[in-house]
Amino acid sequence: MAAQTILFDFTLDAGKTATSIQRQEVARIVRNELEHVFTQLELAYSMESMDNGYFSVLHENKETIITCRIFQQGLLTINVEYYLAAGKEPVLSLDKGKRLENALAKSLQALSGQKIPTLKRGDVARYYPSSDERIIEYDIDTLVYEARSPFQKIQILHSKTLGNMLILDELQNIAESDLIYTETLMGRGIENYEGKEICILGGGDGALLYELLKEKPKHVVMLEIDELVMQACNKYLSSICGDVLEKRKTDQYEIIVGDCVDYMKKFIAEGRKFDYVFGDLTDIPISDAPIGECWDFIRTIFEHSFQLLKPDGKYLTHGNGTSCLESLQLFEEQLRLLKPKVKFTTTKAFVPSFMEEWLFYQVTFA
Amino acid sequence: MAAQTILFDFTLDAGKTATSIQRQEVARIVRNELEHVFTQLELAYSMESMDNGYFSVLHENKETIITCRIFQQGLLTINVEYYLAAGKEPVLSLDKGKRLENALAKSLQALSGQKIPTLKRGDVARYYPSSDERIIEYDIDTLVYEARSPFQKIQILHSKTLGNMLILDELQNIAESDLIYTETLMGRGIENYEGKEICILGGGDGALLYELLKEKPKHVVMLEIDELVMQACNKYLSSICGDVLEKRKTDQYEIIVGDCVDYMKKFIAEGRKFDYVFGDLTDIPISDAPIGECWDFIRTIFEHSFQLLKPDGKYLTHGNGTSCLESLQLFEEQLRLLKPKVKFTTTKAFVPSFMEEWLFYQVTFA
Repeated sequence: MAAQTILFDFTLDAGKTATSIQRQEVARIVRNELEHVFTQLELAYSMESMDNGYFSVLHENKETIITCRIFQQGLLTINVEYYLAAGKEPVLSLDKGKRLENALAKSLQALSGQKIPTLKRGDVARYYPSSDERIIEYDIDTLVYEARSPFQKIQILHSKTLGNMLILDELQNIAESDLIYTETLMGRGIENYEGKEICILGGGDGALLYELLKEKPKHVVMLEIDELVMQACNKYLSSICGDVLEKRKTDQYEIIVGDCVDYMKKFIAEGRKFDYVFGDLTDIPISDAPIGECWDFIRTIFEHSFQLLKPDGKYLTHGNGTSCLESLQLFEEQLRLLKPKVKFTTTKAFVPSFMEEWLFYQVTFA
Repeated sequence: MAAQTILFDFTLDAGKTATSIQRQEVARIVRNELEHVFTQLELAYSMESMDNGYFSVLHENKETIITCRIFQQGLLTINVEYYLAAGKEPVLSLDKGKRLENALAKSLQALSGQKIPTLKRGDVARYYPSSDERIIEYDIDTLVYEARSPFQKIQILHSKTLGNMLILDELQNIAESDLIYTETLMGRGIENYEGKEICILGGGDGALLYELLKEKPKHVVMLEIDELVMQACNKYLSSICGDVLEKRKTDQYEIIVGDCVDYMKKFIAEGRKFDYVFGDLTDIPISDAPIGECWDFIRTIFEHSFQLLKPDGKYLTHGNGTSCLESLQLFEEQLRLLKPKVKFTTTKAFVPSFMEEWLFYQVTFA
C-alpha cells in the first residue's frame, strides 16, 4: 500500500501567465487536457492572488486529487495524488503519464516540461539525498530494523541490489555493497598496517575495524559513542563487520563506548601515540561557511588527532561527495589552519550505496 | 528560478485515521506543528469524504501552499510548495525540514515517516527513471540542445559529473561518461573485429561505430532512422563519437538513414551476411507480458538479424537494468522461441549515466 504522487511541471512564456486573465486561460487548457485522462474531473477549489498566481484543486471522486499552480513567473506545476492499493493498476502508468505530459506541453505551447517519475509514499522510506542534496530512490524492499538511540535514529534497510544499508538520521552510512568505501578509506595496498598502533574515531559499523584486523596491526582502539549502532550492525551487517563487534576487548583490539573527544584528551594526557588515526565520524556538513557546531566538532577532532599521532603518523578520513566542491574546500581550509602544519593527499572511489564518487583524505605532518 | 516541492509522509496506526473525527484530530496536530515553522499559516480549504479521507489546503501569504491529505488506511501526506527566486534563502532548509519531520512524527506518534529530498521544478529537467522506475536526480546544469524529430524528443543535457547526456523521449541513452557501456556491448578485449563485416541497428549516437572502427573491421554498415539524433550527437557528444557522424560513407563504413527493418529485408534479399549484428535500438519495454508494439518490434529485429548472420556470426545487444528480472526473463523467452535455435551468454557493467548495473547479451546459433 502506498500513495502515488506524480508531479508535472512546465515552463511557459512568462508573458502568458503575468495577468489573472491569462492564468485563467492556462488553467482552462490544463483542465481540458486533464479531463481526457480523468473523465470525472471536478473543480473543488481555486485561489488567485495578484502577486502569487493561481492555485486550484481538482478531483475525481475525491480519490485522485490534483492540484494545479500557476506562478506569475511562467511556471506551471501539477501534482496528482491517489492511493494505490496492493494489486491494483496505477491510475497513471509511465506511458499514460508521458502522453499526458506531451499533450499538455503541446496545448500550452510550453517552452519545456517534465514529468517527475512517480513518488511512492507510505510503504518503505526509499528516498535519500546525495551529498549535493539530489534525490535518489533506492530499491528498498524492507525496513529491517529501526530504533532511536540517545544520539540518533538508526535504521537498517534492505536494498535489492546493495544489501542491508545502515541509515543514521536519514542519511546513508554504509551498505553491504561498500567494501570499496572501507578499502579506499584505509588505502588498502598502499598503507602497511602490520605491527602498527591504530585509533579509530567512530566506526561503529565495524567494517573498518574488521578490515584493519586482517592486516595484522599491533593494536586497534575504536572510540564509538553509540552502543545501539554497534548492536544493529553486529546483527544485520555481519557480512561487512564479521564478528568484531561481538567482543569489546581482545589482544588485538579494544572498543570503547563513549565520546571520542573525552578519550582523546585522556590519551593525550597519558602521552599515548598512534601510527594511524582514522576519522570515521559524521559527514562534513554541507555549508557555505565553516561555522556552526559541525565545523567546530571537525576542528576539535583534527586538533586532538594530530596530538595523538607519532611524527610519521597518518590521519585518514573520508571527505565528501566529489561534487560538493565548496564543502571540500572548506574542509581543506580547516586542514591548512592546523598547527603544526600538515599536508594531505586525496583518493577517490565510487561508493555503490552513495551512488556517487567520494573523496578521501590522507593527512600527515608537513 | 524554480518551484520547490517538499513532500513528507507518515504512516500512522490505521485505527487513528479510520473515522472523520479521528482525521480531524490528526489534521489539528499537523496544523499545530506546521504553525511552528509557518507562523502566518491560514486554512484555505478542506474536503472530507467518508470513503476517501481528509484533504486540506493551508497557505502562508498565498506564497507557500501546503496540502495535507489523510487517507483512512493510516497514511498522511503533506506537500509544501513555494517559489524560490534566484539568490533567496529556501523557506525550508534540509535541517529545518528534518526537524519538522521529527516534530510531526513525535506529535502524531507515527509508526514511520520520511521527508523526500526537495524537488526543484521549472528550471532544468533533472529527474529520470532507472530501468525499474526509481527516480534519480541528475546534477544537470544546462539544457544544451532540444528538438523534436519526426520520431522522438531529442535532448542533450549537461551533467556536472557525467558530461553531456543524450536523452530521447525523456529516457537516458548515453553520456560522455559511458565508454564502459560501449565497451561492454561490444565485448572489447573478448571479440576480435579485425577484418570483420558488421551491421549496427540504430546506434545513432555514433559511439559504437567510433569504437568499432578502432578495431580495424573490414566494413561497418549502420542503419539509423533519426538524422536529427546524429546531428545532435555529432555536435555535442564528439568526445564519444569522434568525427564518425561527419561523413555518411567512407571505405570503412556507411551510415544509412532509414528504417532498419526495411534495409535488413533488402540485405536478406541480396543474400548479404555479417560476422556481427548489433542491436543498439530502443530499450526492452518494462512489461509483464511479451505483447504490444515494442515486443513485436524486438521479435522482428531478432528474426531478421539472425537471417543476416553468417553461421558463426554473433548478435550483440544491450538488455536492461539487472534489477528488471521480469523484463529480462521475457527477453530471454523471446530468444528461446527463435528458429533456428540460438544460445546466449551475458555480461554486465555499471553504467555511470544509468546509475545502475546493466545486462548485455551475446547471442549465437546453437
